[in-house]
Amino acid sequence: MHREGILLDKRPIGVFDSGLGGLTAVRELSRLLPAEEIIYFGDTGRVPYGGRSGETILKYARQDVAFLRTFDLKAIVIACGTVSANALEPLRSENPIPVFGVVEPAGLAAVKETRNRRVGLIGTQASIRSGAYERVIRTLDPAVTVIAASCPLLVPLVENGRFKPGDCVAETVTAEYLEPIKKAGVDTLVLGCTHYPLLKPLISAYMGQSVALIDSGEQCARMVASLLARQDVLAPAGREGAHRYYVSDTAEGFARLASLFLQRDVAARVNRVDIDAF
Amino acid sequence: MHREGILLDKRPIGVFDSGLGGLTAVRELSRLLPAEEIIYFGDTGRVPYGGRSGETILKYARQDVAFLRTFDLKAIVIACGTVSANALEPLRSENPIPVFGVVEPAGLAAVKETRNRRVGLIGTQASIRSGAYERVIRTLDPAVTVIAASCPLLVPLVENGRFKPGDCVAETVTAEYLEPIKKAGVDTLVLGCTHYPLLKPLISAYMGQSVALIDSGEQCARMVASLLARQDVLAPAGREGAHRYYVSDTAEGFARLASLFLQRDVAARVNRVDIDAF
Repeated sequence: MHREGILLDKRPIGVFDSGLGGLTAVRELSRLLPAEEIIYFGDTGRVPYGGRSGETILKYARQDVAFLRTFDLKAIVIACGTVSANALEPLRSENPIPVFGVVEPAGLAAVKETRNRRVGLIGTQASIRSGAYERVIRTLDPAVTVIAASCPLLVPLVENGRFKPGDCVAETVTAEYLEPIKKAGVDTLVLGCTHYPLLKPLISAYMGQSVALIDSGEQCARMVASLLARQDVLAPAGREGAHRYYVSDTAEGFARLASLFLQRDVAARVNRVDIDAF
Repeated sequence: MHREGILLDKRPIGVFDSGLGGLTAVRELSRLLPAEEIIYFGDTGRVPYGGRSGETILKYARQDVAFLRTFDLKAIVIACGTVSANALEPLRSENPIPVFGVVEPAGLAAVKETRNRRVGLIGTQASIRSGAYERVIRTLDPAVTVIAASCPLLVPLVENGRFKPGDCVAETVTAEYLEPIKKAGVDTLVLGCTHYPLLKPLISAYMGQSVALIDSGEQCARMVASLLARQDVLAPAGREGAHRYYVSDTAEGFARLASLFLQRDVAARVNRVDIDAF
């Protein structure tokens, strides 16, 4: 049921990521907005972006958006910490539809959450190098201190299924990255990469239950849901929105990784895109 | 000094890899053939190839070769286990100059080296999946048993500088991958990826001094040197061949990784290539 006079917008939401980590945001988006149709693009042929230059990240992100915009979309969600941190502004100014990233919602959630104004941040090399999360947090509350660490091995570990508590390698690597952040006495930790939610139990065990973990993809999904509702551009309620998946490498291997990030089996049809043609 | 009547070929040798691991082969090539001019292309904007499909690896390799062939080359060296294992035949048939890969020389060296006819093999997922090393070895000696393991985390570990004995994470991951190979009682182990030579001390400590390690890039460099000499197409002796480096991401970061793989400081000029235009 929806209110009288509400505007309905049946157009899909476009979501993209350097690979399949962004599906953690899709999971939350479809939980909050089950009626929305989602077109997902994962750049599996060029993943990971996290070790690349800002210039290359922007070039790839522009191609990703150009592909998504071959569909008539109501909004674009950058479900990737690296792209959000390095390319949000140009993507916003170049596209006439709303473009959401994960940095602002994660920064906002961290500022709301922290009591002692000491916030930890982990992300890829390119995300941390950009300083984007710190800029958002400092704008919201200049009194917050951010202690950041780039974690280049976490994405390969997660993609190889090594993220569960008890995995000695994942635990050792994570503890090395987090040690200075834990020592700094943060009460809030931003997971600035959409791969990291899979590491939550392991990270929480190391940091302690009292440290709040901010899932940037989840926060982004909530912001998208609330803004679309406020603008009265949700899809008609009662239907189940279809999800379509596109990747730049072959579809083989998609199901295994996708089910990891979506935490359910994916029987969806997956199509391949020649992304460098965009 | 060179013999009377020898043909000289001043044209450079083109060398490429998915990234900078192939510089371990360049190091050996320039040791054996200091007079040769080398043009190196590292696809740093799309590295790593090892987890991608055969189809995508072939597409990227064709672009890499197309770029290299904008120079007038006497030969092309695929200094990458993943490309050699997945794309050698099409690259050979499509190009009118000699194309060398690392699989054949490594397989040949392993068959020559083994006494007990039990050979271990490690490489990327795409290299192991291709079965290319086994095919070469079985053709040379059908009595050799190959015990293979794909090692998806070794490239990210090496690229993050984690390859030295005493690095607990590198030691744990390497031991996990190598355990079944060690248990199988091999006397020879093929390092089927040009990143792996950096792990030699660590691998040797785990496998034991009695196991011979075959460095595929080094073996490839030796084969190239011997074939060019046999065909009398070496560069004029006495000069020092210039090396030129091209990458597909920005040149930043090249020096650090390159000096890791070349084991000397690189002050070379590095140029960027828009590889998807090829």
